[in-house]
Amino acid sequence: MLTAKGAATRRRIIEAASEEIRERGIHATTLDDICRRSATGKSQLFHYFPEGKEQLLLAVASYEADRVIEDQQPHLGRLTSWPAWERWRDAVVERYRRQGVNCPLGVLLTEVGRNTPAAQAVTGRLLVRWQRDLQSGIETMQDGGHIRRELDAERTAAAVVAAVQGGVVILLSTGSTDHLVAAMDLCMAHLRA
Amino acid sequence: MLTAKGAATRRRIIEAASEEIRERGIHATTLDDICRRSATGKSQLFHYFPEGKEQLLLAVASYEADRVIEDQQPHLGRLTSWPAWERWRDAVVERYRRQGVNCPLGVLLTEVGRNTPAAQAVTGRLLVRWQRDLQSGIETMQDGGHIRRELDAERTAAAVVAAVQGGVVILLSTGSTDHLVAAMDLCMAHLRA
Repeated sequence: MLTAKGAATRRRIIEAASEEIRERGIHATTLDDICRRSATGKSQLFHYFPEGKEQLLLAVASYEADRVIEDQQPHLGRLTSWPAWERWRDAVVERYRRQGVNCPLGVLLTEVGRNTPAAQAVTGRLLVRWQRDLQSGIETMQDGGHIRRELDAERTAAAVVAAVQGGVVILLSTGSTDHLVAAMDLCMAHLRA
Repeated sequence: MLTAKGAATRRRIIEAASEEIRERGIHATTLDDICRRSATGKSQLFHYFPEGKEQLLLAVASYEADRVIEDQQPHLGRLTSWPAWERWRDAVVERYRRQGVNCPLGVLLTEVGRNTPAAQAVTGRLLVRWQRDLQSGIETMQDGGHIRRELDAERTAAAVVAAVQGGVVILLSTGSTDHLVAAMDLCMAHLRA
């Protein structure tokens, strides 16, 4: 267990690494850069990440995955009306439009190896949280009589997460949010039908 | 312009490279392996790919992108009834279930750099072909009175391509086709509604 001070230092190192990687790219970022930006020494860095750069990159990936969810809040956690769903949709499109063709999380996962158990755990947790919030939203709307009961909330939430993911992946290669918007609009239309 | 014989040799080199990369992985595959497998000499290989490995990898990426479409045929080009749409859906799910967590096209695009214009051209062409076939299918079904006219065929096709992409991306990290199936089923339900 880390002390509060230790946790704060660890967090500062992760945030510094995230910013360096976002600005300079993962291959140009050195541990020295991260130490300088976080005002920590190398020995401190290795105290929190004894396995070195790979372990730090995984922690940064986990932090970036948290940001994917946070950037959708408070909308994602509060899908209680159609206007709320619209605001969530707009927030997602705007987040990814701003991000453009460079996905910090994707870069990190590629670097640590997408098929490694640790990387899969990061994406797995992200998917579960994202999908759970969408499922709650669908169930709340069903309870309020706004979405038909026959719709399987869990499977529908899985489909919506997939549609958003696909729109983002296409944006990463085309630079356009067109597919993301089309995919989200199709899902919303299906929910409202 | 290549002669017929030249085009056949070039094709043999690309196919050999594709098989080597699928079996051994991109980093373990050498130009010597590809020459051996295609029964061509190094000088022949450089005749067809004067810029070397990078140019060859791009040609292999383009070949893998063609396979993505071919593996969905004849269904994708013949979406003229609901049973035809079901067969297409099953073919897509089965293709990606078999492929599992290793995407040959994805590996190649990562290697040549996803954000390079050449890689973007490969994914761009793939998306256009895929979406065009889906749009034709939707329009045919609209002409037959099976899909409502109000649906924008082009945007809906874009949404379906995105949903499939998202399901595949999630499969690449989870190993499960659940999201892909859920996403395709949501799209089909929306088309049929």
